[in-house]
Amino acid sequence: MRWRLPLVCFIWQIAMIVLFGVFVRYDITSSPAWALTNTPDYENDFYFRYPSFQDVHVMIFVGFGFLMTFLKRYGFGSVGLNFLMAAFAIQWAILMQGWFHSFEKGKIVIGVSNLINADFCTASVAIAFGGVLGKISPVQLMVMTLFQVTLFSVNEWVVISKLHAIDAGGSMTIHTFGAYFGLTVAWILNRPRLEENNDKEGSVYHSDIFSMIGTLFLWMYWPSFNSAISYHGDGQSRAAINTYCSLAACVLTTVAISSAVDKKGRLLMVHIQNATLAGGVAVGTAAEMMLMPYGSLIVGFICGIVSTLGYTYLTPFLSSKLKLHDTCGIHNLHGMPGLIGGIVGAVTAAAATADVYGGDEGLIKMFRYEELGYVRSSSIQGGFQAAGIAVSLAFAFVGGTIVGFILKLPIWGEPADENCFDDVVYWEVPEEEPEDALKAYTVHNNNKLGSP
Amino acid sequence: MRWRLPLVCFIWQIAMIVLFGVFVRYDITSSPAWALTNTPDYENDFYFRYPSFQDVHVMIFVGFGFLMTFLKRYGFGSVGLNFLMAAFAIQWAILMQGWFHSFEKGKIVIGVSNLINADFCTASVAIAFGGVLGKISPVQLMVMTLFQVTLFSVNEWVVISKLHAIDAGGSMTIHTFGAYFGLTVAWILNRPRLEENNDKEGSVYHSDIFSMIGTLFLWMYWPSFNSAISYHGDGQSRAAINTYCSLAACVLTTVAISSAVDKKGRLLMVHIQNATLAGGVAVGTAAEMMLMPYGSLIVGFICGIVSTLGYTYLTPFLSSKLKLHDTCGIHNLHGMPGLIGGIVGAVTAAAATADVYGGDEGLIKMFRYEELGYVRSSSIQGGFQAAGIAVSLAFAFVGGTIVGFILKLPIWGEPADENCFDDVVYWEVPEEEPEDALKAYTVHNNNKLGSP
Amino acid sequence: MRWRLPLVCFIWQIAMIVLFGVFVRYDITSSPAWALTNTPDYENDFYFRYPSFQDVHVMIFVGFGFLMTFLKRYGFGSVGLNFLMAAFAIQWAILMQGWFHSFEKGKIVIGVSNLINADFCTASVAIAFGGVLGKISPVQLMVMTLFQVTLFSVNEWVVISKLHAIDAGGSMTIHTFGAYFGLTVAWILNRPRLEENNDKEGSVYHSDIFSMIGTLFLWMYWPSFNSAISYHGDGQSRAAINTYCSLAACVLTTVAISSAVDKKGRLLMVHIQNATLAGGVAVGTAAEMMLMPYGSLIVGFICGIVSTLGYTYLTPFLSSKLKLHDTCGIHNLHGMPGLIGGIVGAVTAAAATADVYGGDEGLIKMFRYEELGYVRSSSIQGGFQAAGIAVSLAFAFVGGTIVGFILKLPIWGEPADENCFDDVVYWEVPEEEPEDALKAYTVHNNNKLGSP
Repeated sequence: MRWRLPLVCFIWQIAMIVLFGVFVRYDITSSPAWALTNTPDYENDFYFRYPSFQDVHVMIFVGFGFLMTFLKRYGFGSVGLNFLMAAFAIQWAILMQGWFHSFEKGKIVIGVSNLINADFCTASVAIAFGGVLGKISPVQLMVMTLFQVTLFSVNEWVVISKLHAIDAGGSMTIHTFGAYFGLTVAWILNRPRLEENNDKEGSVYHSDIFSMIGTLFLWMYWPSFNSAISYHGDGQSRAAINTYCSLAACVLTTVAISSAVDKKGRLLMVHIQNATLAGGVAVGTAAEMMLMPYGSLIVGFICGIVSTLGYTYLTPFLSSKLKLHDTCGIHNLHGMPGLIGGIVGAVTAAAATADVYGGDEGLIKMFRYEELGYVRSSSIQGGFQAAGIAVSLAFAFVGGTIVGFILKLPIWGEPADENCFDDVVYWEVPEEEPEDALKAYTVHNNNKLGSP
Repeated sequence: MRWRLPLVCFIWQIAMIVLFGVFVRYDITSSPAWALTNTPDYENDFYFRYPSFQDVHVMIFVGFGFLMTFLKRYGFGSVGLNFLMAAFAIQWAILMQGWFHSFEKGKIVIGVSNLINADFCTASVAIAFGGVLGKISPVQLMVMTLFQVTLFSVNEWVVISKLHAIDAGGSMTIHTFGAYFGLTVAWILNRPRLEENNDKEGSVYHSDIFSMIGTLFLWMYWPSFNSAISYHGDGQSRAAINTYCSLAACVLTTVAISSAVDKKGRLLMVHIQNATLAGGVAVGTAAEMMLMPYGSLIVGFICGIVSTLGYTYLTPFLSSKLKLHDTCGIHNLHGMPGLIGGIVGAVTAAAATADVYGGDEGLIKMFRYEELGYVRSSSIQGGFQAAGIAVSLAFAFVGGTIVGFILKLPIWGEPADENCFDDVVYWEVPEEEPEDALKAYTVHNNNKLGSP
Repeated sequence: MRWRLPLVCFIWQIAMIVLFGVFVRYDITSSPAWALTNTPDYENDFYFRYPSFQDVHVMIFVGFGFLMTFLKRYGFGSVGLNFLMAAFAIQWAILMQGWFHSFEKGKIVIGVSNLINADFCTASVAIAFGGVLGKISPVQLMVMTLFQVTLFSVNEWVVISKLHAIDAGGSMTIHTFGAYFGLTVAWILNRPRLEENNDKEGSVYHSDIFSMIGTLFLWMYWPSFNSAISYHGDGQSRAAINTYCSLAACVLTTVAISSAVDKKGRLLMVHIQNATLAGGVAVGTAAEMMLMPYGSLIVGFICGIVSTLGYTYLTPFLSSKLKLHDTCGIHNLHGMPGLIGGIVGAVTAAAATADVYGGDEGLIKMFRYEELGYVRSSSIQGGFQAAGIAVSLAFAFVGGTIVGFILKLPIWGEPADENCFDDVVYWEVPEEEPEDALKAYTVHNNNKLGSP
C-alpha cells in the first residue's frame, strides 16, 4: 500500500522521459537554427512573453499553493501537493497540448509559449484541486491530474481550434472547465458524514495571512496571465489594462458585500482571499478585445458581488442541500465568474465592429479569421463564443463524472473522514513538544501559567 | 452605522465606472490603431515598462501590505486594508493623473505608464497609511485616500509640469509628500491616552517574519520602482544601478547602527525591516541622473544611519514630546530620506555639466528642456528642484491639516483607544479555541501543562 | 566586544565607497554616451536581461533567505543575516568580478550583467552559509563573505576565462564551489558537543511553511537564473526550457524517494523544501547547450533521487562519522547536484556536433571559440569542462580550509554551543508574555487551561 505514491511518481516520470525523448524538440525560437533565420534577437518571441511567463509561473506555484494554506492543519498539503501536481501537470500538458497545437513533422516543437500554455492547463487542475482539497490522497490527485490535463487539452482543441472561439485568459477553457470538473468530482466523492467532524476545516490567524500571500500574487500577476499569449503589441497591453481595471473594481464590491452581509459589518477573510480575484477570472475571454476600461470595471463590479454572495449563501446551500462540499469555494471564484467571463466574451465579440477595431483588418486579426479561412459576422462569432461555454461545461460534467468514479475506486488510499484536512496522514509533521511550545511563554514567569 | 463601509465602497466604485465611461480610453500603444502606425511591436512602450510595472505592483500590494504585518494582532488590517485602499487609489489616480497628464481631445488615454503612475500615487497613500496604521477605520482610510490621491496629483502636476523638476522615483512627490501628509494627519488624530494601552502595539516572532516578506520585496524591486518611468535605454539602466547600489550600502549602515545603539549589541527587527529601505527612497529623485555608483553608495550610507537613529531616538521623542504617534515610523523611512533625496537631486542637477551627460543634447534630454521650451542653466534647474521639495512639503502640511480635520469628524466610525491595533473590530478573526490551540502542545503529555 | 559588528559594517562600507569612487563607472548601456552610439534603445542589453536580473535578485534575498527559515527559533538570523551578507557580497563582487572581467582603461564599467553576476557570486556565499547556519556569528559571516567572494572571483576567472569552460548557470563555479567551500568551513568549525543540545535544530509547523516561500521562489525563478547571462535569442530561451524541464522531473522523484524511505510512506518537508531544487543546480552548466528537453528530464530525475537519498542517509552519516554538521544539507542540494551538473556539462560539450548546433558557426558561437582564438574539438572542450570541476573543487577545499581556520580565531564572537540555532543572542526577540500568548486561547474559557 505505501508503495503506491512512489511507484506512481517514478513510473509516470519515466513515461514522461520516454515520450519527451520520442516527441519533444526545441522550436525555432529556442534552437541554434534561430541564427540561420537572420531575425534580430529582439524579435524572438521569448522577449515578448518571458516576463509574463514567469509571472504566470508564480501564480501556479505560489499563488494557488499559498491561497489554499488557509486551513489550520493542511498547509503542507496545500502548498506541497499543489507543487507535486503542478510539476507533473506541466510535463503532461506540454505533450498533450503539443500533439494538438505544436506538432510539426512528427515532433512537438516547444518555445516559451508552450511553457505558458502548460502553466495555463495546470491552473485548471489547481482550480479543481481547490474543490477536493483535504479530502483526497496524493495518489488520487495524481490520477485526477492525468485525466484532467488530457480532457483540458481536448476541450481546448475543440473550443479554440475547431469552434475558433477566442479565450486568451481562459474564462471558459481554464476556469469554467476547471471549476465544474472539480465540483463534479467533489460531488461524486461526497462524504456524507464529513460535516460532523469538520473542526479542522477552519483557519487560524497566521494561516489566513499565509493565504493572503497566494491571493496577492494571483491578484497582482493576473494582468500577465490574461495577456501572456495575447497578440504582440497593443493586444498584450490592452489585455493587461483590462485585467488591472476589472480586478481593482472587484476588490471594492467584495469588501462592500462582505461587510454588508455580516451582522456587525465586519469583513470576512475568506471573501478577501477569494472573491477579490473573481474580476480576473471574468475578463479572461474578453481581455484582449475592445472591452474598454469602464467595461472591465463593470465586469469586476458584478463579479465581486456575485462571488461574495456565493460564499455567503450558495456554498452553505450546496453543502447542506446538494451534498456538494467545495473546500475552497471554487464555484464562487472560478465557476460563476468563469461563466460570466464566457458570456462577456460572447457579447463583446458579437458587438465587435470594424470601426472599433481599426478597420476590417483589425477585426480579422483580433478574431483570427485568417486562420479560420473565412470572415465570420460578429454575431456568428458571438454564437461560437457561446458554444465554447457549452462545450467546456459538457467536458467538465461528463469528464468529471467519469474521473470521479475512477477516483472512487478503493485502491488510491483515500483518507478516512476523520483524517480529512489534516497533514498528519501524508506528512511527517514536526512534533511540537509542550515544553518547546510553552517555553517562549514561560520564560519570564512560570507561575502565571499554572494559575491563569 | 454598519452600512458606512459598504455604501462608501459601492458608491465610489459606481462613480469610478461612470467617470471611466465618460473619460478613459486606450492610448495608441493599447488600441487597435497601433497597427495603423506601422511601428514594430518591439517598439511598443509596453515592452520597455511592463516588467517594471509588475515589480512596482508587487511593491504596492505585497511590499507595503506585508511590511505592516509586524503588529501581532493587526495582520488582517495591514494586508487587507492596504489591499482595499490600493484598489481604490489606482482607479482614482488614473483619473486624476489622466486629467493632468494624458488628456487628449476630451479623453484620458491610458497605456502601461499610466498604470505605473497610478501605482506610484498609491504608494504615497500606503506611506501615509503607515503613520496611522491601527488607529483609523476602513472608512477613514477610504476618505483619506480620496483626498490624498487628489492632492498628490495636483502637487505632482505643479512639481513636474510647472516647476519642471525631475523626480523619476518620487523622493519628493511620493515619499516626502506621503510621509509628511501622513504625519500631519496622525498628529491631528492624536490620541492622548493611547500610550497607556499599547500592549497590542508590538510584534510576535512570526509577525516579524511576515513583515520581512514586505521588506524584501520592496528592497529587491526598488530598482524597478526608480527606473520604471525613466527614459528608455541608458536612463532605465542607470536608474536601476544607482538604486541597487544605494540600497546595498544602506543595509550595512542600518545593521551597524542597530547593533551600536543596543546595549548588548543585538539587532532590532524594526530597523532591519525599515531602515534598510531608506536608500531606495533617497535616490528617487536623482536615480536617472549621473549620480555615479559611488554617489549612490554614499546616499545609502547616510540614509541607513539617519533612518536607524530616527527609529531609536526621534520616534520616541516625537511620541512623548510632540504627541506625534507614528505607527510604522514613516518619518524615518520616508520623511527624512525623502528630504535627503530631494536635496541630492537638487545638488546633482545643479552640478550637471554637458561633459558628463554626453554633450548638450544629453543635458537637454535628461532635464526635459525640450518640453520646457528653453534651456535652463544647471544651477537654475537645481533651484527648481529645491522648490519641488518646498512645494511638496507645503502640500503635505496644508493638505494633511485639512484632511486631518475632516477625518476627525465623528461620522467615520473611528475605533476606540482600546480597539486600536486590533483586527477584531473590523474583521471576523478565527476563534482559536483553547482545545484547538493547545492540542498540538498537549498531544504527547497532558500532564506537563498543568504543572509547568 | 559589542563594537565588532558595527565596526566591520562601517569600515567595510566606507572601503566600498572609496573603491567604487576610484574604480566603478557606468558602461555604455548605462551612460549618456549610449545615445551617441545611435543604437536603438530596444537593442540595449538592459532589456534582454533586466527581467531575469530581478528574478535572480528575488532568489538571492527571498529564495535563500526564506529557505533557511525552517529552524524554529532562527528565522530572524536566516532571513536577516542572509540580507546583510548579500548586501555586502554584491558590492564586493562587483569590484572583484569587475577587475577580472569588466576592466577598461583603469575603470570597472558596469551594466545590468554585472548586477546579475554579482548576484550569482552572492548565491555561492548563501549556499555556504547554509552549511554553517546557526553556528556562526554575524561577524564570522562577514569575514567568510569577504574571503569567499574573493576566492569565487579568482576561481571563476580561471574556469571561465582561462580554461574557457562554459558554465552559464554555475553548476561548477557557484554550486560545487559554494557547497564544498561551505562544507570545508563547517568541518573545521566542528562543534563536537553540539549534538547533545540540538533540540532547537528543528522546525515547527509554520516555520516549515515560511521555508516553502523560499523553496518556491527558487524553483520558479531558476529558469531565469540559468538563462540570465546566456546568449541573446535562442540561447536564453533554450536555457529557460531546459531548466524548467529538469526542475519538473526533480519534484516527482523527490516525492517518490521521500515517501519510499519513510516507514509509513509519508513525505518529509525537508526533502520537498530542498531536493526539489537539485534539478536546477544540475542543469546549470549545460543549460544553454543542446541538452534537449528529455535530457533535462533525465538530469532532474537523477538529481531528485540522489539529493533525497543524501538527506536520508548521507547527512546523518557525515554528521556522526565524519563530524561534518551541515545545517541545511547543502551537500545534498548543491554539492552532489553541482558535481553532476559539471559532469553533464562536460559530456554534453564532448558530444557536441556541428550538425546539432546549426553548423560550425553555431558550435563556435556556443562554445565562445572566437574569444578563445582557436576552435577546440568537442572532446577537448569536454576535457576542459571536466577540468573546471576539478579546479572549483580545489579552490573550495583549499580556500575553505584557510578561511575555516581564520574563522576559528577566537576574536569573532562565535556563539557558544548552547546558543546555536537561537536568534536570541544576536537579535532582540519580541517578548511573548504568557498573558499575551495565552490570551487568544483563553478568551472563551479560562478554566479549561488550568485543568487540561
